[in-house]
Amino acid sequence: MTTNVTVTADLMMSVDGCIAGPNAGIGNPGGDGGLRLHEWIAGLASWRERQGLTGGEHNRDSEIVGEWFDATGAVVMGRTMFDTGEEPWGDDPPFRAPVFVLTHRPRQPEVKRGGTSYTFVTDGIHSALEQARAASGGRNVDIAGGADTVQQFLRVGLIDEIQLHVLPVLFGEGLRLFDRLGLLHQELEPLRVVHTPNATHLKYRITRKA
Amino acid sequence: MTTNVTVTADLMMSVDGCIAGPNAGIGNPGGDGGLRLHEWIAGLASWRERQGLTGGEHNRDSEIVGEWFDATGAVVMGRTMFDTGEEPWGDDPPFRAPVFVLTHRPRQPEVKRGGTSYTFVTDGIHSALEQARAASGGRNVDIAGGADTVQQFLRVGLIDEIQLHVLPVLFGEGLRLFDRLGLLHQELEPLRVVHTPNATHLKYRITRKA
Repeated sequence: MTTNVTVTADLMMSVDGCIAGPNAGIGNPGGDGGLRLHEWIAGLASWRERQGLTGGEHNRDSEIVGEWFDATGAVVMGRTMFDTGEEPWGDDPPFRAPVFVLTHRPRQPEVKRGGTSYTFVTDGIHSALEQARAASGGRNVDIAGGADTVQQFLRVGLIDEIQLHVLPVLFGEGLRLFDRLGLLHQELEPLRVVHTPNATHLKYRITRKA
Repeated sequence: MTTNVTVTADLMMSVDGCIAGPNAGIGNPGGDGGLRLHEWIAGLASWRERQGLTGGEHNRDSEIVGEWFDATGAVVMGRTMFDTGEEPWGDDPPFRAPVFVLTHRPRQPEVKRGGTSYTFVTDGIHSALEQARAASGGRNVDIAGGADTVQQFLRVGLIDEIQLHVLPVLFGEGLRLFDRLGLLHQELEPLRVVHTPNATHLKYRITRKA
């Protein structure tokens, strides 16, 4: 049993709760104007290292992103996120861990360089999570996205920790992270709040219902 | 001219962006379960003082709430908030400043004790803001709520500073603060982030569009 593995979600979000702009989809993954949520990470040393690049800033943001990467032993993501990313991630994807893709289309697993593999899971989120737990080596399972996938896990109470990297912008319209959840009234336990010139990083433990 | 008056909004919000639970309205002002967002403030010395009570905690939360009260020279609110509050606020309301109520029903102004007065404005938000500015004595005009009123001011770019007191809870369903705004992509400037055991206080300046 590996039930003591922590299930995490780490998302970049506007102050008004959007993780992408309007019209997000394949070909426009961040939605209109959604780059605003991601540009801060591009210059960080820890992020660049995962992209096979050198240099970048060593600051608190870089530490927080690096901590997230290093703590993750397996990844679960939705099919749209995978379809959008597969080509740009290339043969040496930034995950360096087994990735489990939720899909309705069976496909053979693929092994990439650097520790990344792609396994396609057609029998739902519980199966994906079970496989990811078993493959995580005792490290965290990260629910990478998109919004719909994170919502599926939140609805059934399967996420233990959520970290929101809040960017100082109001989108007004866009893809909401906390949507279609049904009534929760779920208590959170603040684990850490770090404010930097780039973002405000809010990390919470999601208390299990009694 | 009093155009250098700062227009503020100060709201208590769940992590998923709700300022009230579902089914909010007259008779159920905080919505189902919405008390969770307000209970932290009830024990603060600065809050109790405004209610005519003694005692309470002198802590960072109390300072932040007291700072907000002291900086406010006039208040604008929607009719539903007023109708809900008028009776409990009584003859010595906590505002201690002129209050301008947005309504379609003309009504004579009323002067209460302690510096509070109620003026009923039937010709829209710009008129209410202009009257509040003129009455503010150079201090801030606070847009007190509800969500619909704050949204009206946000849509037309009339709020200068917004402070969100974020409570560690996911509502799932409820009254969203940042809703019905249309496309904004409005940059914010973080002014202060304070994290306490009660809440995370995020204060932003809303950058004016060029």
